[in-house]
Amino acid sequence: MTLMHDEILEQPAVVARLAGELAPYRDAVARARAAGVRFVLYAARGTSDNAAVYGKYLATIHAGLPAGLAVPSSATVYDTPIDLRECLVLGISQSGETPDVAEYVTHARRAGAFTIAITNDETSLLAREAHTTLATRAGHERAVAATKTYTSELAVLALFWATWCDDRALLSALLDEVPVALDAALALDAEIAETARWLRFAERLLVAARGYNFATALETALKLKETSYIAAMPYSAADLMHGPIAIVEPGFPAVLFSLDGRALPAMRRLEGDLLKRGAELIVVEDGRSDGASAGDRRRRVLRLPRTLPEALSPLQAIVAGQLLALRLAEARGYDPDKPRGLHKVTRTL
Amino acid sequence: MTLMHDEILEQPAVVARLAGELAPYRDAVARARAAGVRFVLYAARGTSDNAAVYGKYLATIHAGLPAGLAVPSSATVYDTPIDLRECLVLGISQSGETPDVAEYVTHARRAGAFTIAITNDETSLLAREAHTTLATRAGHERAVAATKTYTSELAVLALFWATWCDDRALLSALLDEVPVALDAALALDAEIAETARWLRFAERLLVAARGYNFATALETALKLKETSYIAAMPYSAADLMHGPIAIVEPGFPAVLFSLDGRALPAMRRLEGDLLKRGAELIVVEDGRSDGASAGDRRRRVLRLPRTLPEALSPLQAIVAGQLLALRLAEARGYDPDKPRGLHKVTRTL
Repeated sequence: MTLMHDEILEQPAVVARLAGELAPYRDAVARARAAGVRFVLYAARGTSDNAAVYGKYLATIHAGLPAGLAVPSSATVYDTPIDLRECLVLGISQSGETPDVAEYVTHARRAGAFTIAITNDETSLLAREAHTTLATRAGHERAVAATKTYTSELAVLALFWATWCDDRALLSALLDEVPVALDAALALDAEIAETARWLRFAERLLVAARGYNFATALETALKLKETSYIAAMPYSAADLMHGPIAIVEPGFPAVLFSLDGRALPAMRRLEGDLLKRGAELIVVEDGRSDGASAGDRRRRVLRLPRTLPEALSPLQAIVAGQLLALRLAEARGYDPDKPRGLHKVTRTL
Repeated sequence: MTLMHDEILEQPAVVARLAGELAPYRDAVARARAAGVRFVLYAARGTSDNAAVYGKYLATIHAGLPAGLAVPSSATVYDTPIDLRECLVLGISQSGETPDVAEYVTHARRAGAFTIAITNDETSLLAREAHTTLATRAGHERAVAATKTYTSELAVLALFWATWCDDRALLSALLDEVPVALDAALALDAEIAETARWLRFAERLLVAARGYNFATALETALKLKETSYIAAMPYSAADLMHGPIAIVEPGFPAVLFSLDGRALPAMRRLEGDLLKRGAELIVVEDGRSDGASAGDRRRRVLRLPRTLPEALSPLQAIVAGQLLALRLAEARGYDPDKPRGLHKVTRTL
């Protein structure tokens, strides 16, 4: 057993714990609404930046607020004066000690933004700098490759925006369906380990998704690079067609997240385009996805047993990505708990 | 001669032509200011999306406005109601016919945004949908791999934001210094061709920058993938440290844009970290950059002859990236004018 595997297994319980206590979200939403939020910015690095992409989609699609990823260097490198009144700035960091994220939040607060820290350490620098903190309560993360803190960041973001929209169906799905689905997803491990053995000599790989699961593609690619040193290139399905798809030659592997929902037709078209170029596909689907062409020998399907509402599907889909990174590292003879020269807290300024 | 090379050579004249006529920028800025802009969103795909990243940095750092990249799928896939009053939405597309960018701009206009099209075709769908158009006036682009339209998009963005800030020094640099610097940069071609021959067997590559030149890293990586089919992975220096750097083993190649300016110290630290891991560096510098360790045999320096104000350095730096993509394609035996299965207008919805 590896630490990374232990922590992947903890995820259903982590999400259930978070979804069981809504008071912090009600409080944060009330304070942010009182501040008159009209625009949303996220500040994060690495894995947390991928969670921020999910948060950007939730704010835009679910809450109807324009949202983007901040430019942390505007505070840390360029020290630029900026007008952030009516902005909600969410700083996300597992440790809460990423200096440029904390510094950006300080800068944003002074510039008039309402600021929220999302962190696994409520006593951290980031938590101290923000107006309020939403703790990810994932327990101490020992593996260098973040897994449960990523999922807990997604859960906090989903709980926050579902509370913002007073979307009770989503809140109830987070409490009931999501932990069950995460648990069910773990059953794919043996099949993923086999896929990893098949994939073990690949040096390059595309990872693609569309809509909410663009974050899943980004985070899966990051995990694959961190633990398996494979050149995993993440794309939204739309951007992949604008140039990068030229890299695909016969036998080129691609991991696609084709989850049920409104983004699915675009993913099916991408699958077709990639197969025409001779790509070898690993397609992560969920219960209801149409698996019509599953018989194609160049199209391996990893089918998650449960289907979640599309806005929550990234919480489940990433489990497949994490397991693939873990099992690919092992198949390639690496220790997933010891990525080359990485430390748990990265200090960049 | 290739079409791609022809169009790289046209870039100094394209920028000079744009910078010589400021009336369209004064008009667009006056109209956007009258609309009461407080937030900025860009919608684009592919190469234009990389230009949008530059535009995001300009709006944030130079104009002090919160800015982000839009979620086009919020309009095209999820059809979500959104409040975009006081938002400036800039849609960028060379052809102006990218359907999801045009559709997002239509959606944004209805949602209350002031919309600007940045396109090489003033009669295009995108131009018709937006409140006003800033034409890139680059002339017909025949090569599939966009070069002069990217640089002209950067120039339009710089002219727009310099006009917004009434920054006459920047406007005058765009007219005088930038065309001269772009012309001077072309002199690096022979040295870049030699670097490309040295690099020709690489299958994987990192491309990194910080600040304004993050866009340069993204666009260089895209050009390398499109023309040379190399797995080029672009990162901001800060994000690279958060995980992906684990992929670097002895001999791993990395292209770094270490231009003069406030982002330079961070780039120098990254160079040190990468050299410690045994990476082989290609460092693009400009006139004044400190080349102290240029003698290191694992650190090849491509020195741009002129130094521009940091905010304008991406216009010059990308010339090195474009030439590297062109010469690497040739060194690898590919025709840079015929990327595998790409077309000039990509239709994604």
